Amino acid sequence: MPRLEDIRGPEDLRALSPQAARALAPQIRRLLVDTCTANGGHLGPNLGVVELSIALHRVFASPRDRILWDTGHQAYVHKMLTGRAGALGTLRRTGGMSGYPCRAESEHDVIENSHASTSLSWADGVARANALLGRSDRAVVAVLGDGALTGGMAWEALNNIAAAPERPVVVVLNDNGRSYAPTAGAVAAHLAELRDGGGRDSLFENLGLAYVGPVDGHDIEAVETALRTAAALRKPVVVHCVTEKGRGHLPAEQDDTDRFHAVRAASARKPGGAPSWTSVFGSELADLAADRPDVVAVTAAMLDPTGLSEFARRHPERVIDVGIAEQHAVTAAAGLALGGAHPVVALYATFLNRAFDQLLMDVALHRAPVTFVLDRAGVTGDDGPSHNGMWDLSLLNLVPGLRLAAPRDAATLRRALREAVACDDGPTALRFPKGPSRADIPAVDVCAGLDVLHRGERPDILLVSVGAMAATCLDVAGQLAGQGVGVTVVDPRWIQPVPAGLTTLALDHQLVATVEDSGRVGGAGARVAQALGDAAPGLPVRVFGIPQRFLDHGSRADVLEAAGLTPRHLTRALLEALPSGRRDRQGATATAAVG
Amino acid sequence: MPRLEDIRGPEDLRALSPQAARALAPQIRRLLVDTCTANGGHLGPNLGVVELSIALHRVFASPRDRILWDTGHQAYVHKMLTGRAGALGTLRRTGGMSGYPCRAESEHDVIENSHASTSLSWADGVARANALLGRSDRAVVAVLGDGALTGGMAWEALNNIAAAPERPVVVVLNDNGRSYAPTAGAVAAHLAELRDGGGRDSLFENLGLAYVGPVDGHDIEAVETALRTAAALRKPVVVHCVTEKGRGHLPAEQDDTDRFHAVRAASARKPGGAPSWTSVFGSELADLAADRPDVVAVTAAMLDPTGLSEFARRHPERVIDVGIAEQHAVTAAAGLALGGAHPVVALYATFLNRAFDQLLMDVALHRAPVTFVLDRAGVTGDDGPSHNGMWDLSLLNLVPGLRLAAPRDAATLRRALREAVACDDGPTALRFPKGPSRADIPAVDVCAGLDVLHRGERPDILLVSVGAMAATCLDVAGQLAGQGVGVTVVDPRWIQPVPAGLTTLALDHQLVATVEDSGRVGGAGARVAQALGDAAPGLPVRVFGIPQRFLDHGSRADVLEAAGLTPRHLTRALLEALPSGRRDRQGATATAAVG
Repeated sequence: MPRLEDIRGPEDLRALSPQAARALAPQIRRLLVDTCTANGGHLGPNLGVVELSIALHRVFASPRDRILWDTGHQAYVHKMLTGRAGALGTLRRTGGMSGYPCRAESEHDVIENSHASTSLSWADGVARANALLGRSDRAVVAVLGDGALTGGMAWEALNNIAAAPERPVVVVLNDNGRSYAPTAGAVAAHLAELRDGGGRDSLFENLGLAYVGPVDGHDIEAVETALRTAAALRKPVVVHCVTEKGRGHLPAEQDDTDRFHAVRAASARKPGGAPSWTSVFGSELADLAADRPDVVAVTAAMLDPTGLSEFARRHPERVIDVGIAEQHAVTAAAGLALGGAHPVVALYATFLNRAFDQLLMDVALHRAPVTFVLDRAGVTGDDGPSHNGMWDLSLLNLVPGLRLAAPRDAATLRRALREAVACDDGPTALRFPKGPSRADIPAVDVCAGLDVLHRGERPDILLVSVGAMAATCLDVAGQLAGQGVGVTVVDPRWIQPVPAGLTTLALDHQLVATVEDSGRVGGAGARVAQALGDAAPGLPVRVFGIPQRFLDHGSRADVLEAAGLTPRHLTRALLEALPSGRRDRQGATATAAVG
Repeated sequence: MPRLEDIRGPEDLRALSPQAARALAPQIRRLLVDTCTANGGHLGPNLGVVELSIALHRVFASPRDRILWDTGHQAYVHKMLTGRAGALGTLRRTGGMSGYPCRAESEHDVIENSHASTSLSWADGVARANALLGRSDRAVVAVLGDGALTGGMAWEALNNIAAAPERPVVVVLNDNGRSYAPTAGAVAAHLAELRDGGGRDSLFENLGLAYVGPVDGHDIEAVETALRTAAALRKPVVVHCVTEKGRGHLPAEQDDTDRFHAVRAASARKPGGAPSWTSVFGSELADLAADRPDVVAVTAAMLDPTGLSEFARRHPERVIDVGIAEQHAVTAAAGLALGGAHPVVALYATFLNRAFDQLLMDVALHRAPVTFVLDRAGVTGDDGPSHNGMWDLSLLNLVPGLRLAAPRDAATLRRALREAVACDDGPTALRFPKGPSRADIPAVDVCAGLDVLHRGERPDILLVSVGAMAATCLDVAGQLAGQGVGVTVVDPRWIQPVPAGLTTLALDHQLVATVEDSGRVGGAGARVAQALGDAAPGLPVRVFGIPQRFLDHGSRADVLEAAGLTPRHLTRALLEALPSGRRDRQGATATAAVG
C-alpha cells in the first residue's frame, strides 16, 4: 500500500495501480481532518475533491498541462499530491503553507486569487496563448464548483470557450450542489435535472460545448475515464462530476449549514468571549427588521458567514441569496430600492471589489437608498493577500454621495446600522473587521459632532481613529502621555463625507494623524488629508494605514505588526513626525510606519 | 394620420388604431436621422427599435409598469413616445436632453447608468420589491440586446429571475446580432439557431424560463401579440425579437462596421485635423505587433471604437473580441500572459470599473505583464455622467505594482505604448482622452527623468501636468509669467509609481500643484500629494481635478469650465494659493477651483 508521504509529485501518483491510488484516499482524508482541526481551514471542500484530485493528476501532466483551481480553497489535496503533504502542518500559519494555491510554493500552482468564477477566463486565455504559440499539445483544465458557475464571469468565459471548437478546454464541474449553503438559482436546478438524467439537452450543449457525465466524483476510475474521454475530444468540453462536500467525515456530512466549509483552528474555538462583529450586526439587523417591513437582506452565497442566519430565521421572506454574484446583488439592490424596499447588502469587504461599477453607476448615480455592510474589512490575515479587506475605504471614497461609517465597537456598530437604514437618499456603508467585537469604548466628550475618546494634557496631536483602530489609538495616546505629549483621540464614526468638525478640531493641534486598517493610498486618511489640505493648507497630516502592496498570509497580529499598525510603531512614528519643539528625544531613532 | 408631435404620452399612443400606430414609424425615423445628423448620437440602435418601442408602450402602461432599457442608448424613440419628441433637437447638448434615459426628464425613465447588461438585475430587484410589497399587478419589462446578453451580469440575473416562477419578469431580447460589430461568442450562435428555428430547447428553457418567439421586431402587431402572450403567462419569460440595426435608413443598413451605431454631429465631421488619440494608438500598436508576434489585442465588443481595426486587418489571428465582458477580457489577458503572450486590453476608461477586481487579483497579484489602454479617459462630456472617464486614475492608484502612463500628445503616446509593451513584469496602463490628439509638446529639458515643458523666471510654482492637461498647464504658466510668478511645468509621463525625481524638484519650489482630467479624490494628484507629504511634510500641495461628483452632460469644454480646469480658473486659484510673499494683488478675489 502506498504511503501519502512517499508521493513526491504527480509522476509517483501516475505510477500507481488503480487499487493503490484508491488506497491514498483515506490517508488524505485523515490528514485533512487533522490539519484543519489544528490550524483551521477549508475542510468540507477538500474532503469532497479527494478522488477528483487524484484522478486529475493521474490523467493530466501538471505543470505542462495546466490545472486551474477555481477559488482555490479546495487545493489542499492537490498540494498533497504535488509533494507538499509533509508541509501541511504549517497550513495558514505565518511563514507556512498558504491556504490557497501559491506560485511561490510550487510550479503546479497557478491561480492564487481566491475570488470565485475566474478559472474559466484563465483557461480561455491560456488556451488562446497555446494556440497562438503552437503549444496545442498542452491541456488546459479548469476545475470549478457549481457555486462558481453562478458568477457572471463564468458565463462570459463559457461564451468565449464554447465559440472555439478548435481550442480544447476541459471544464471540470465539481457539482456538490453547494457553495457554502445549497447553490442558489436556476443553474442549480438545471444541474440537478442533469444529475437525475433529465434527458434534455444541457445548456452546455446548447452553447456548443461537449458534455460528459454525470459521473460519480468519488469513483476515481470513473472520473479518470471521463477525463480521458473529454481530453480525447480535442474540443471544449464540460465534465460533470457529482461530489459530496464533507465526504468521508461524518460530522461534516451531517452538517446542514455548510458541510464544514471552513472550520476554525482549535485554538480559536474558545467558548465565551465577546460576540463577533458579524453576530452583533446580524442580531441588530434582525431586530431592526422587525419594525421595518421594507428592510431586505441580500447575500452573495454567504448567508451564514455574513451573519444573516438569524435574519433568515426570523424574516425568511425577506432574505435573498443571489448566488456568487456580487454584481447582481448590488444592482438588484438598486432595483429593490426603486421598488420601495430598503436593501442591506452584506458582503465580505474584499468581494465588494467585484461590484464597484454597480455600486457607482446603479446605486450611487441613482441615489438609491441601499446599505452595504462590509464584513472582514481590514487585515484578515490567514487567508492571504486576496482576502484582506484593504481596498474598500479607497473604493468607497470615490463614490459620490455615499455615506460611510466605521464603527469602533459593538455599540457604535448597532448605532451606525440604525442610522444607515434610516437614510432614504443615497447609499450608506458600514465596515468592520473579522473576529470578536471590541469592548465598548465610550466617548469622553462629543465635539463638533465627533466622538472624542481621549483628551491629553495639551493639544499636541489630533489622532483620528478609523473604526476598530480605536483601542490601538488609545494605547498610543497613553504611551505618548508618558513622553509628555498630549493626544486628542477622535472617532468620527461616519468617515465619509469628511466631517466638517474635523477641520475645526484639527486647527487646535500641531499635528494631525490618521490610523486606519485599510490601504493607505486613497483611503480614509488620505481623504482627511486632502480635506485638511484644502481647508487648512500647511497643517501637517500623517496617514497611517496598510502599505499599498499584497500582504503575505499570517495572523492578523503579525500582519499589523509588519504594517507598523501597532501602538509601539505608531508611537515612535508620531514622536518622529511631531514638530521638533514637542518631540521627545527618545523618538529620534524611530522609523516611520508608512508604506 | 397621427402626427408624432401630438403624442403627449403613452396614453395617446395606446388610443391609436394599429394602422395609425404604424404611421408613426416613418416620422420617428425621419426625426432620428435629422437629430443624429445634427447633434450626433446613437442612430443605428434607435432605428432598430422603432416598432419595438411603439409596441412596448402600447402593451405596457409606463410608469406603473417599469420599462427598463439596458444600456439606454436606444431610448430616443422611447423619449419621443413619452412626450419628448419636441425637445429632441437639444439632444446631447449642454443643458439639453440627455442621450440616455434621465430621471430628471421624465417619470418614464428609470435606469441612467449606460453600462451594459444591468437591466435584468434591475428587473429582478423591482420584481422582488413588487412581490414583497404586494404590488404584483405591476409589470416589469427589461429590454436588452443580444450583445448585452454576453455580459456576466445578465447571466447572474437570469439565474435569479428564472428560479422564481411566481415572480413575473418580461425579458425582451432585442436581437439584432450585433453590439457595435456582430456579437461575439457561443450565445450569438445559439440565438442564430433559434432565429432559424433550430428546433432544440433554448438555453432559456434550460434555465426554466418561458420563451416566446422569435418574432419580427419590425412588425408592431406581431410584437404586441408576443408581449401580451408573455405578460399573460405571469411568470419569467423571454420574448425573442429579431430586429435590424439601422433599419429604414439605407446608409446605415449598408454599413458593415457598426450600422451607424453612433454618428458624430455635423459640426464634428470636419475633414483633416489632427488624428484622434484612438487612431494614434491603433496604428502604433499594429506597427509594434509586426515585430512582436506575442502581442495580442483584446477588446470587449468595441474593436473599432478602441482603434483596433487596423490591428485586426494586419494581424487578424491576434485580435480577440470577448463580447461585452470586461471581467473576462481582463482575466483572460492574465491567462494569455501566463501562456506567454503579451496582451493589450483596449477599453474605454469608464468600463475598466467593471473589471477592477480582475485587474487587482488576476493581473496584478500574479504580476502578469498585461498592458491596459484606456481610451475616453477624463471628461467625455456629451454622453453624460456614466461615460466620463474620471475614475480610472483613482482605481489604478490602488493597484500594487502597476505602472501608469498619461501621455500628453501623440509622440508620448507612441513612446509610452512601446515602453509598456516592453515591460515583462506586472501590469502597465496608458490613458488618454476622447477626440483629436494634441500637437506635440516637446520637453525643453529632462530633469531627474522627468520632462520639463517650461521653466519660468523663478521657481515659484511646480506645476505637475497629468497627460493631456499639458497645454492647459503651459497656458497657466504663460498667464502667471505675466503676473510675475515663475512656474516650472513638469510632465512625469509615468505617473505611477510617483517618480522619485518629483520630490527633488518639488523641494526647489514654494508651492506644488497638480492638474489632472480625472476625479481629484485618490487620483494622480492625491498620490503625488501623499508622496510629498511623506517625503517633504509641510510643503504646500494643491490638487486640481474633477470634483468628485456625477457630472451633467455637456460639451467637454463646458464641463472642464464648470470643473475649474481651464487656464483662467487655474491661474486664479494658483495666485490665491501662493504663499503671500509671491502673490500678485490681482489674485486676491479669485475662487479656488477645487471640488
